[in-house]
Amino acid sequence: MKPFRWQARIRFADTDASQRIHYTAMFRHFEASEQEFLHALGCPYTSHEHRDFGFPRVHVECDFQSEIRYDDLVDIDVTVDRVGTSSFTLAFAAGVAGRNAAKGKVTVVCLDRHTERSTPLPARLAEALRRYLA
Amino acid sequence: MKPFRWQARIRFADTDASQRIHYTAMFRHFEASEQEFLHALGCPYTSHEHRDFGFPRVHVECDFQSEIRYDDLVDIDVTVDRVGTSSFTLAFAAGVAGRNAAKGKVTVVCLDRHTERSTPLPARLAEALRRYLA
Amino acid sequence: MKPFRWQARIRFADTDASQRIHYTAMFRHFEASEQEFLHALGCPYTSHEHRDFGFPRVHVECDFQSEIRYDDLVDIDVTVDRVGTSSFTLAFAAGVAGRNAAKGKVTVVCLDRHTERSTPLPARLAEALRRYLA
Amino acid sequence: MKPFRWQARIRFADTDASQRIHYTAMFRHFEASEQEFLHALGCPYTSHEHRDFGFPRVHVECDFQSEIRYDDLVDIDVTVDRVGTSSFTLAFAAGVAGRNAAKGKVTVVCLDRHTERSTPLPARLAEALRRYLA
Repeated sequence: MKPFRWQARIRFADTDASQRIHYTAMFRHFEASEQEFLHALGCPYTSHEHRDFGFPRVHVECDFQSEIRYDDLVDIDVTVDRVGTSSFTLAFAAGVAGRNAAKGKVTVVCLDRHTERSTPLPARLAEALRRYLA
Repeated sequence: MKPFRWQARIRFADTDASQRIHYTAMFRHFEASEQEFLHALGCPYTSHEHRDFGFPRVHVECDFQSEIRYDDLVDIDVTVDRVGTSSFTLAFAAGVAGRNAAKGKVTVVCLDRHTERSTPLPARLAEALRRYLA
Repeated sequence: MKPFRWQARIRFADTDASQRIHYTAMFRHFEASEQEFLHALGCPYTSHEHRDFGFPRVHVECDFQSEIRYDDLVDIDVTVDRVGTSSFTLAFAAGVAGRNAAKGKVTVVCLDRHTERSTPLPARLAEALRRYLA
Repeated sequence: MKPFRWQARIRFADTDASQRIHYTAMFRHFEASEQEFLHALGCPYTSHEHRDFGFPRVHVECDFQSEIRYDDLVDIDVTVDRVGTSSFTLAFAAGVAGRNAAKGKVTVVCLDRHTERSTPLPARLAEALRRYLA
């Protein structure tokens, strides 16, 4: 299956005094694309099925490959790197005008809000994610 | 003329432990709508005509009228409150599902990058802004 | 009484491509000084007495008077502008090396977490704030 | 040599609707500790010796080990993981009340501002960093 693509425009608040994107802003755009990806799967974090779960991140990483500047339009491709029992890893590839700009990964754990312990992923979410395994 | 409308979705990074939007995030969304508004006017800050100018903010304000939460879709209406010689004020009205949620103003000064002093607004920008005076 | 003073250093994440502070970062530093001020008063938002209350902002504003850059040390003076029945307004004055850089106000409402309606300020907090009325 | 330690307090703007720290905020605190570490070494990015160089990040990562909440005091230990010819990697270990909370790495490249290409680290900076190799 083709990756899910989300396009973001770089804001002033995303940049820093180097005149390039501040690296934390890339993660904000990854998060936006994750949120839109889960909407596209029909499994948003806000769905009724997820009301007893939290989805904290346990690992995040990003490599910056080329510069990203104010007003750039960034295409972010989301794929699924791994679907485990109680966690999954998303992979993000960001490009500007066809040039590789950044790539990252985020590992999300499913947490039972009541016990505060990890718990198996909701079945419908796990199944939807598997369709986007890279 | 009708306001320029921009729609934003509230991200996790926009919220805080109160489970509502953190107030600085509202300004980031105002900034995004300002940037898209200037693109719609054909006068983005990145245009060649603006290469000798900076556009710092000298006053910003916001009133919060009702709660804004994660995953909300926020409609932001941009109008022009004032066009002066070397500055202008934009007004923003944010709503969620037709309910007033926040309203703000931002006053932007045109700065000559070389002298670091305020300078008259580029004529084409001033004219375009006047078409959206509320 | 003398204002409460808090010193902040400007981080890369606080700046933008103009090579100055991004205006939302000033509010983050105001918020840090508010938090430290309430600790100094012995009334932090996390205190047991406040467990049934939320403290959302209903109005925020800031004027930018001169430039603030990466690595600058900013002195933020906090005073109390107004103490009402169920809300209060803090005033912030930020300076760099003795030069006025920014001044702002934040109006905070005391909200009953259960009814989601405004409620009188806790007596000890109101009294402590009054000692810093400008 | 003992790690360089920097203490940060968690702000409201650092949290999200999960009532824990938003993961990008951890990186902002790592950045603050990096900046203070370089000051302690006598080699801040703003020093005259560094005027021709930029220091963009090419890789960042973080593991979240336990929860971090509003108003927590976080101790961040900075060590040097690697000093290469034109780049270096810092390691960060964040704890709350003696409990491991997060650990991360940031790889910084020295960039010649004129050629926009990587260039050997300034000798004094490389030497100072080597003293903190873990």
